[in-house]
Amino acid sequence: MAKILIINGPNLNLLGTREPEIYGRVSMDDYLKALSVDYPGVEIDYFQSNHEGDLIDRLHEAGFDSELAGIILNAGAYTHTSLALADAIRAIERPVVEVHISNTASRESIRQQSLIAPVCRGSIAGFGMDSYRLGIEALL
Amino acid sequence: MAKILIINGPNLNLLGTREPEIYGRVSMDDYLKALSVDYPGVEIDYFQSNHEGDLIDRLHEAGFDSELAGIILNAGAYTHTSLALADAIRAIERPVVEVHISNTASRESIRQQSLIAPVCRGSIAGFGMDSYRLGIEALL
Amino acid sequence: MAKILIINGPNLNLLGTREPEIYGRVSMDDYLKALSVDYPGVEIDYFQSNHEGDLIDRLHEAGFDSELAGIILNAGAYTHTSLALADAIRAIERPVVEVHISNTASRESIRQQSLIAPVCRGSIAGFGMDSYRLGIEALL
Amino acid sequence: MAKILIINGPNLNLLGTREPEIYGRVSMDDYLKALSVDYPGVEIDYFQSNHEGDLIDRLHEAGFDSELAGIILNAGAYTHTSLALADAIRAIERPVVEVHISNTASRESIRQQSLIAPVCRGSIAGFGMDSYRLGIEALL
Amino acid sequence: MAKILIINGPNLNLLGTREPEIYGRVSMDDYLKALSVDYPGVEIDYFQSNHEGDLIDRLHEAGFDSELAGIILNAGAYTHTSLALADAIRAIERPVVEVHISNTASRESIRQQSLIAPVCRGSIAGFGMDSYRLGIEALL
Amino acid sequence: MAKILIINGPNLNLLGTREPEIYGRVSMDDYLKALSVDYPGVEIDYFQSNHEGDLIDRLHEAGFDSELAGIILNAGAYTHTSLALADAIRAIERPVVEVHISNTASRESIRQQSLIAPVCRGSIAGFGMDSYRLGIEALL
Amino acid sequence: MAKILIINGPNLNLLGTREPEIYGRVSMDDYLKALSVDYPGVEIDYFQSNHEGDLIDRLHEAGFDSELAGIILNAGAYTHTSLALADAIRAIERPVVEVHISNTASRESIRQQSLIAPVCRGSIAGFGMDSYRLGIEALL
Amino acid sequence: MAKILIINGPNLNLLGTREPEIYGRVSMDDYLKALSVDYPGVEIDYFQSNHEGDLIDRLHEAGFDSELAGIILNAGAYTHTSLALADAIRAIERPVVEVHISNTASRESIRQQSLIAPVCRGSIAGFGMDSYRLGIEALL
Amino acid sequence: MAKILIINGPNLNLLGTREPEIYGRVSMDDYLKALSVDYPGVEIDYFQSNHEGDLIDRLHEAGFDSELAGIILNAGAYTHTSLALADAIRAIERPVVEVHISNTASRESIRQQSLIAPVCRGSIAGFGMDSYRLGIEALL
Amino acid sequence: MAKILIINGPNLNLLGTREPEIYGRVSMDDYLKALSVDYPGVEIDYFQSNHEGDLIDRLHEAGFDSELAGIILNAGAYTHTSLALADAIRAIERPVVEVHISNTASRESIRQQSLIAPVCRGSIAGFGMDSYRLGIEALL
Amino acid sequence: MAKILIINGPNLNLLGTREPEIYGRVSMDDYLKALSVDYPGVEIDYFQSNHEGDLIDRLHEAGFDSELAGIILNAGAYTHTSLALADAIRAIERPVVEVHISNTASRESIRQQSLIAPVCRGSIAGFGMDSYRLGIEALL
Amino acid sequence: MAKILIINGPNLNLLGTREPEIYGRVSMDDYLKALSVDYPGVEIDYFQSNHEGDLIDRLHEAGFDSELAGIILNAGAYTHTSLALADAIRAIERPVVEVHISNTASRESIRQQSLIAPVCRGSIAGFGMDSYRLGIEALL
Repeated sequence: MAKILIINGPNLNLLGTREPEIYGRVSMDDYLKALSVDYPGVEIDYFQSNHEGDLIDRLHEAGFDSELAGIILNAGAYTHTSLALADAIRAIERPVVEVHISNTASRESIRQQSLIAPVCRGSIAGFGMDSYRLGIEALL
Repeated sequence: MAKILIINGPNLNLLGTREPEIYGRVSMDDYLKALSVDYPGVEIDYFQSNHEGDLIDRLHEAGFDSELAGIILNAGAYTHTSLALADAIRAIERPVVEVHISNTASRESIRQQSLIAPVCRGSIAGFGMDSYRLGIEALL
Repeated sequence: MAKILIINGPNLNLLGTREPEIYGRVSMDDYLKALSVDYPGVEIDYFQSNHEGDLIDRLHEAGFDSELAGIILNAGAYTHTSLALADAIRAIERPVVEVHISNTASRESIRQQSLIAPVCRGSIAGFGMDSYRLGIEALL
Repeated sequence: MAKILIINGPNLNLLGTREPEIYGRVSMDDYLKALSVDYPGVEIDYFQSNHEGDLIDRLHEAGFDSELAGIILNAGAYTHTSLALADAIRAIERPVVEVHISNTASRESIRQQSLIAPVCRGSIAGFGMDSYRLGIEALL
Repeated sequence: MAKILIINGPNLNLLGTREPEIYGRVSMDDYLKALSVDYPGVEIDYFQSNHEGDLIDRLHEAGFDSELAGIILNAGAYTHTSLALADAIRAIERPVVEVHISNTASRESIRQQSLIAPVCRGSIAGFGMDSYRLGIEALL
Repeated sequence: MAKILIINGPNLNLLGTREPEIYGRVSMDDYLKALSVDYPGVEIDYFQSNHEGDLIDRLHEAGFDSELAGIILNAGAYTHTSLALADAIRAIERPVVEVHISNTASRESIRQQSLIAPVCRGSIAGFGMDSYRLGIEALL
Repeated sequence: MAKILIINGPNLNLLGTREPEIYGRVSMDDYLKALSVDYPGVEIDYFQSNHEGDLIDRLHEAGFDSELAGIILNAGAYTHTSLALADAIRAIERPVVEVHISNTASRESIRQQSLIAPVCRGSIAGFGMDSYRLGIEALL
Repeated sequence: MAKILIINGPNLNLLGTREPEIYGRVSMDDYLKALSVDYPGVEIDYFQSNHEGDLIDRLHEAGFDSELAGIILNAGAYTHTSLALADAIRAIERPVVEVHISNTASRESIRQQSLIAPVCRGSIAGFGMDSYRLGIEALL
Repeated sequence: MAKILIINGPNLNLLGTREPEIYGRVSMDDYLKALSVDYPGVEIDYFQSNHEGDLIDRLHEAGFDSELAGIILNAGAYTHTSLALADAIRAIERPVVEVHISNTASRESIRQQSLIAPVCRGSIAGFGMDSYRLGIEALL
Repeated sequence: MAKILIINGPNLNLLGTREPEIYGRVSMDDYLKALSVDYPGVEIDYFQSNHEGDLIDRLHEAGFDSELAGIILNAGAYTHTSLALADAIRAIERPVVEVHISNTASRESIRQQSLIAPVCRGSIAGFGMDSYRLGIEALL
Repeated sequence: MAKILIINGPNLNLLGTREPEIYGRVSMDDYLKALSVDYPGVEIDYFQSNHEGDLIDRLHEAGFDSELAGIILNAGAYTHTSLALADAIRAIERPVVEVHISNTASRESIRQQSLIAPVCRGSIAGFGMDSYRLGIEALL
Repeated sequence: MAKILIINGPNLNLLGTREPEIYGRVSMDDYLKALSVDYPGVEIDYFQSNHEGDLIDRLHEAGFDSELAGIILNAGAYTHTSLALADAIRAIERPVVEVHISNTASRESIRQQSLIAPVCRGSIAGFGMDSYRLGIEALL
């Protein structure tokens, strides 16, 4: 049975309530339940934190777990400001797929550079919550 | 039966021979055959040109075809230089998904800005030929 | 009888259907008919292409035609990316007037630099379809 | 009878004497007389000042005059440095058309950005004194 | 009895009519009356001009008036373009508080740099007409 | 009784000892006591952390508390580097007022851009500890 | 008898009182008296204004006066922001010498670009009030 | 017998008539005749197009022709704007030498960056029509 | 007996396993043991965290400890993004020496600016694990 | 008797022959003779070198000579590229006056920044050979 | 008999030993011998120095020698930093051809701007030691 | 016995007299004597020059001396402007350690980029004269 870890960064605990015109009205909890139905053969772990350091700690912990197929990371705003997160991704062994709910390319200029994209396996952005689903497809 | 159009831009006719360490060794022909096996319920059209104008013409032609689920566009180098292509995407009605074989974020700086990303539905990059497959998943 | 050539660049074949809140709802065909009524003493030729090379070819062809009063060029997105078009304008003998339907100065920053403006006789922007009419006035 | 106001900014009181290779040898007085002959049905008011504040005051005064068809503004060098002028144009109700005698796009880089263009109805540049005439055509 | 001078820069004479969605619908006159009621122990002088030079002259005049508690300055668009105004503030003895009605940080990029802020005592922005009131509180 | 939350960011726990020539010699504790005397009808909560994630967590917690009049945020150095904090402010419902003790506009260039200012209700900077007091006035 | 015009720009009416550590403690009046003693054969006119438009008007008036040996211009802060002043200098016939009391090259970066220097005959900066004296030497 | 292909980009069909002060008065036809006399042992093919796509197509066609000693490419204005052309050069096997008739380094700034130079074997610029001759020497 | 604190920032807990071609194969534990042998008269404390806030907290705690000779700080990626860390260093009393294992100047451009260097006593980079040893020498 | 040293930098040994339309037709030798006639009470030393190091050596040698009134330095192209020269000027005790024959502000952009101006007493540019004469006046 | 001078700049004395993967393994001595065999009718002088000033001195000396066909200059790193060298080339009468052994366009960004290219007759780069040979061809 | 070469660049011959508040009051002579006492087993050679070319020559001479443990280079201002020096360091075989007396990161922006750092073994800055001592430690 495949194992996948989804990591969500800052403010993504508010999914479903925060700026619904950008991020939609589905909470992460409900979305994870739907995923587990659609992918019965996949064990999906989930971690969210608003702390850059927590995200790095979790990446370190998971990054050498040989049972993990890979990590799906929506780093939120840290995507654009955290070189430390990029270093963590480069340092670990498991592949990381970058996902974004919104189309970051059509937002403010600061959101148009991703510090972590160069060290991720690949990037998926703009498909709403389906971005996570595509991330799972990519890792499988 | 769903209909999808894949459009490839400049130099992608050389897939399989061009810089295989970046783009792999699979030709587009072989890849399309594999796709048609994997997605029997999807009719996949394919178009490639090295001409910016041809790509725009083809987008116009397909962009108002209500039978089309959407367009998967790998605009190659025009991704980074063609505002006209972006205008064409914005002008049409069918959704366009941007895909890239390589992880453009880890290449030269000129490849780190996509002029078409802001007007596409979403973007997928870095998964090799699987980027097209994820594009189909995204449109379905 | 005066002769004038109007050249339209990429995506302007969609005039009337494309982003009508920016470009209006009049097709170029209807507009040209109205012009021929208003300017009975002027023979107005029209050329449109989405191909940068076609636009250059047409400029070369018309650019040494001594019967032509001048050329009205709406280069669309190539305005901002085509140095080759600028070179073509500089190379020919007939005067070229740059026109834009929308007020390019109030749009995205990439549309705020025109590569062709410095080599045109003058520029007119922001008056909707009337920009062409003012271009004819300027040439007469 | 239509009413139009022409406003000229700094150094344009010297028209006819100042740098004639750029601005020509016709004085504004003579030009206005010619205009009144060509447009007998139009009342043309004229205002010139070298003071940024005077230009703003005059725009405020005219900008709510419902009898005015519009304002033709050649803001001279203030085009490139006066955000206050742009604010004044945005604040008033009458349409403002930006005109320039020379082709500003082919001059120094500082003259290639217009702070007022984004808030004007449209822009006309490079046709010598005829730029004013085209401005009248645009407003009528 | 405390004495305070409020100086308003370009286009602020139109307060109440100009772009009410940004600047509100209250005229400065009405606002000043309300202030005099709320601060009976404060004599509030008021000066407005669209002329950069007038603003400097007035700052010089007031700037050495030892009876003045301080100056509240909304320099409007000159905030972003007038180094001369900044020099005037630095040259005088009375403290100057910079105020803005709108949240300039959320507007166009040119409005995100204040040339006068570094030489003012402090800055207040974004509280609508209440910005002036906070300015008075700051000076008292 | 009105309720207000003051949040202080990194290094502001050292107020009174840290660089007193910039930040003064008053500790936050003493200042809060003085505030509670001056505003007997206002309940003032206080939170300080050097952790970006803690500040986001606290904003989330307070941001939907309908009893809160608003939040006064001195984000310290995170003002200039934390896009995640800006996202948190945009995501919550309670108004946030940005305050700074020093006049950030007169310090190093990196301190002259605030990532959070565009999403705050308004900004107050440069009045020493009185900046907080003005923040309370602004919220009341 | 030679005739020279000295024009001083914004805030230079405060010479002697304004920031004496930069501009010295001599008032312009006293300095002009000393000059008339040292140069008995030179008639020195003086003009100061804080108004950009006044400076342009005065340049126009003096700029075609064939009895004038030349103009010494200390444009103060307008040196760095007024393209209109530069246009005025280019438009007139009399030579203009740019002078500055302080060494502008060692001050803030905005003071390191002079918009008027390219159109002046020459520039003198950093010699205190002696900069004017050197300007007279240069014109004689 | 050695085989060499010369490819000329946009506007170079006008050689001999276009801006002769920059490009000289010799037509490409006459020049090719002279070359064939000077290099009897070399078969020189020639291709010109104003279409970016045609140039890419031709590079693909020639780029794997093992009988070809190499390609001499004067990409004209596409030198500075076509990343697709650079990709084509990198994708093919035959060496490409970049040539320019004029000294591009002494022209406008946009002509001072060559997108194709990094992927060419070498570059030759500024020797008039002799640049092609030096290109042949370099390939032989 | 001298007391020194070594603080390591994000991802440096992986030393010995992370990118050994850049950071070497020695773990920090082993290295600290070797140090204690080489410097028997020095008590070396060690702290590592991936949390920016933890690093600031620890600096505050140690920064006023008068028994400490100084702090050796390898801030990892926070070197380049954390202004808050720089503020912490400036706020404390003990000297801080910046060290880096790799030669940051020869890596990506974002690693070529250190936000903390200006407020440290000095900087040492590029000597592998010996950079720490040199830091101790510098403090002693 | 006053003593002054004139130092000329690279290519100024060619004065009189080099680009006479910019630098004039007078050789430095002839000019120095004329100066010695005009300033009988001043001993003028002269030094020229094309070597940056020689200029520094000479500045060191002269810079502590208490009999020297000062140094007039035309550093030629090193003005814009030599930080070492600026350091030398800052290190010595005698005042240095920067002079330029041409109006550097109206030449290429690289000539518009002087690395040495901030550390010189003052600057004089654009008066042809008279710039040296004004430099002497400034030092006396 | 034609006379040509080859000037090599800094570090080129190490040719054959320095970074052979970039500069090859042939020493300049051996290469010059080969050249003299291939061009029996050409007298080839050679000069190398690591001193910017020496290179300028030598250019001055040779630059007015009417027997010299021209100068081939490989200025090494000074290509990118020496405006003084560019001035020397502009000041002399003999034509100068810029050559580079490596393809500078594909190296670090600082090597992508040549300060001397705009004043040379033409430029040749990337052909290894053959760049010199092409330089001779260009001058003959 | 270990052999080390210390090379000092421009203006460092003035150590002890030049800007003592930055560089201290110890002359290099005295410092070298102290070093030879502290490191009896190390032979320390010393070279200083204000000439960029001399520094390169000396690096070439020492750079292949297999008896040399390494070179300590304080390139002074050439650190920031000399690409030729960087090339020399890369070309030689002995390791070079970059040292600076002052904390260059806290000085003007031009001193914040080192052209030579990327090719040195490592860098040490800000420890006063002790920077040299640490350089010796690093090489041993």
